[in-house]
Amino acid sequence: MTHANATILPVREFAPRHFKLEVDGKVATVTLDRPDRKNPLTFESYAELRDFFRALQHEPEVKAVVITGAGGNFCSGGDVFEIIGPLLDRDMVGLMEFTQMTGDLVKAMRACPQPVVAAVDGVCAGAGAILAMASDMRLGTAGAKVAFLFTRVGLAGCDMGACAILPRIVGQGRASELLFTGRSLGGEEGERWGFFNRLVEPAELLDAARELAQRMADGPSFANGITKKMLHMEWSMGVDEAIDAEALAQGMLMQTRDFGRAFHAFAARQKPEFEGN
Amino acid sequence: MTHANATILPVREFAPRHFKLEVDGKVATVTLDRPDRKNPLTFESYAELRDFFRALQHEPEVKAVVITGAGGNFCSGGDVFEIIGPLLDRDMVGLMEFTQMTGDLVKAMRACPQPVVAAVDGVCAGAGAILAMASDMRLGTAGAKVAFLFTRVGLAGCDMGACAILPRIVGQGRASELLFTGRSLGGEEGERWGFFNRLVEPAELLDAARELAQRMADGPSFANGITKKMLHMEWSMGVDEAIDAEALAQGMLMQTRDFGRAFHAFAARQKPEFEGN
Amino acid sequence: MTHANATILPVREFAPRHFKLEVDGKVATVTLDRPDRKNPLTFESYAELRDFFRALQHEPEVKAVVITGAGGNFCSGGDVFEIIGPLLDRDMVGLMEFTQMTGDLVKAMRACPQPVVAAVDGVCAGAGAILAMASDMRLGTAGAKVAFLFTRVGLAGCDMGACAILPRIVGQGRASELLFTGRSLGGEEGERWGFFNRLVEPAELLDAARELAQRMADGPSFANGITKKMLHMEWSMGVDEAIDAEALAQGMLMQTRDFGRAFHAFAARQKPEFEGN
Repeated sequence: MTHANATILPVREFAPRHFKLEVDGKVATVTLDRPDRKNPLTFESYAELRDFFRALQHEPEVKAVVITGAGGNFCSGGDVFEIIGPLLDRDMVGLMEFTQMTGDLVKAMRACPQPVVAAVDGVCAGAGAILAMASDMRLGTAGAKVAFLFTRVGLAGCDMGACAILPRIVGQGRASELLFTGRSLGGEEGERWGFFNRLVEPAELLDAARELAQRMADGPSFANGITKKMLHMEWSMGVDEAIDAEALAQGMLMQTRDFGRAFHAFAARQKPEFEGN
Repeated sequence: MTHANATILPVREFAPRHFKLEVDGKVATVTLDRPDRKNPLTFESYAELRDFFRALQHEPEVKAVVITGAGGNFCSGGDVFEIIGPLLDRDMVGLMEFTQMTGDLVKAMRACPQPVVAAVDGVCAGAGAILAMASDMRLGTAGAKVAFLFTRVGLAGCDMGACAILPRIVGQGRASELLFTGRSLGGEEGERWGFFNRLVEPAELLDAARELAQRMADGPSFANGITKKMLHMEWSMGVDEAIDAEALAQGMLMQTRDFGRAFHAFAARQKPEFEGN
Repeated sequence: MTHANATILPVREFAPRHFKLEVDGKVATVTLDRPDRKNPLTFESYAELRDFFRALQHEPEVKAVVITGAGGNFCSGGDVFEIIGPLLDRDMVGLMEFTQMTGDLVKAMRACPQPVVAAVDGVCAGAGAILAMASDMRLGTAGAKVAFLFTRVGLAGCDMGACAILPRIVGQGRASELLFTGRSLGGEEGERWGFFNRLVEPAELLDAARELAQRMADGPSFANGITKKMLHMEWSMGVDEAIDAEALAQGMLMQTRDFGRAFHAFAARQKPEFEGN
């Protein structure tokens, strides 16, 4: 299978220096991997993650993604000394370069056709909370601590799309509290609010996330990518326009082979084998 | 009372062939009625339901609607052999004709001024889950099983407005899981997530839905229709524009007689008798 | 410190006649104060509240606001004899003047940079429910009774932005039920739905609300105001546009002194002292 855009490095050849990447069949696992520091983000890891998720747009072999952190924590966010300190010396042009880069990472996570599952244990703070929020689904643990703590470092809650996305996940009142106070959201509360889709034991977290990713990867992956695109496109559409947009999209999908595969498997009382086309 | 549009058949004369229709005073009950097959939808029932909900726009006598299924199930969705099979033989024009028709059914459910209450027990799958979602409110049972299972038949979750509407009911993360995996949502979980307004015993489900519908039908029904219209219109408006739109709508309603009836009843320590004008 | 708009009366000199105003350091407390009538709103108190929240836009000394009611109730809404009766004698111009004024109160609550915390015990009905809804956060009690009861007085649920704002707080299905039926939402249910951020004992309610307000007031208040502005601005934006808008806003905030204060405090292992600039 050829790539729509041959200048993009295929994900399987992507050799990240600032996070760990494992591709097992159709599922890629991204691990933030500086466990001694609770997996902080740096200028380099932001950029590399952005490039990775952009590359996924043109990578037909990978059908779903898991993002997690090493050593019992998800991500402590932008490092105080490696990120905040240097930003204080930047001019407006340099600051915008940074905030645009971090925003572009979220855009890339939303634009890739693969569903992204965050597997969150322990600390999930600042930009780490954003990475979890920007994922399509989130599995957590009872010990997860999610903190949109921008207000504690003198900034606003409007980081990388949080004022738009977080209210749609947990509701406007709860999002306001998290963004205005920076307080930590625990696992059980997070599940109750719909931030976490489910809580699992820490030891089973990564397996559970991969199982969920595998289940989607084994589905009609082209159609899954359209589900993701439409969830994004319809964010601020009127209801009637959204219905019409879905009539176009679903009509198109009824001419994919996966639709026929499902019917024929059903007729033969078998499980369909989807191929993503 | 005359009809705004005299070419539309009044609902009381509507004689559906593909679902059961009962009109009891101001409340109409639609029952999907092929219990041996768990009440699937067919090309004909889609079209007839669309026409019915369109006719409701011009039917001043019916003030609220209940939609339910016969025999302990709500609706199994588009039938595999009666819908999916034939669709495989259609060209793009024929497919769009189908997806537009199904989308137009949801549009008609959202556009009629009557609040629609879904009474959901047992299987509520595919297009059945959409009918429940497109209703204004949903009563369920502990045994309800709601599945947006489009992904299982090789399609996307973007069916009949689901990527726009479902996230607004249960939140973006939970909607994503339901649409990407097609997994079944149980009654208790559905109530906890806000999909169901309330759970009741199966034997009491239809009565409870009719009681809720009756309560609204006995209210200021013209004003109720405006509530429904504004919930729809303000879906993707900015907050300030929505506030201004409501100032216009509520100001207009203060010149209806029902507003005066409420005041005079209150002053006389009586219950108001609303007439919907 | 000078005011951006010198013609606006500073809040500290604001002498309201129709509610009680206390300013304690950076936190202002608004108390609806006609406890014998459960703190109804009148034409005068609506207008005065609107003017107060407008004045807050140009009041840099007040950093957060608590709104509450005296005597164990929040607010019984527009008084039947002082508001509804006189409205029946108004023409369309006079009615629009009223609905625009009430809508402008909500706009002013959303437009002021100070986070607003509602402290809700007992009756919270009609326009009172709107005031709670229009606040950024809500603390309640087990005995709180929140009723969007417009339908009971012959009006629509579309009052002062309710059809736009309430669905984003509690979800579309639950908001529909509250607006169509006017039924009362209790404290525990309200917390479970995300209407209340937290329930506290009645005797501790005001202190808890002031503590939350103080916590935000002690934060980077200029940045908090931007959080509030972006939550408002991004309401109906697309996700990508919201991310870009946040890149601009957060980049700008990285040149405020509060951002540097946070870094230097962290480096010195101290708690930052924010000054809101």
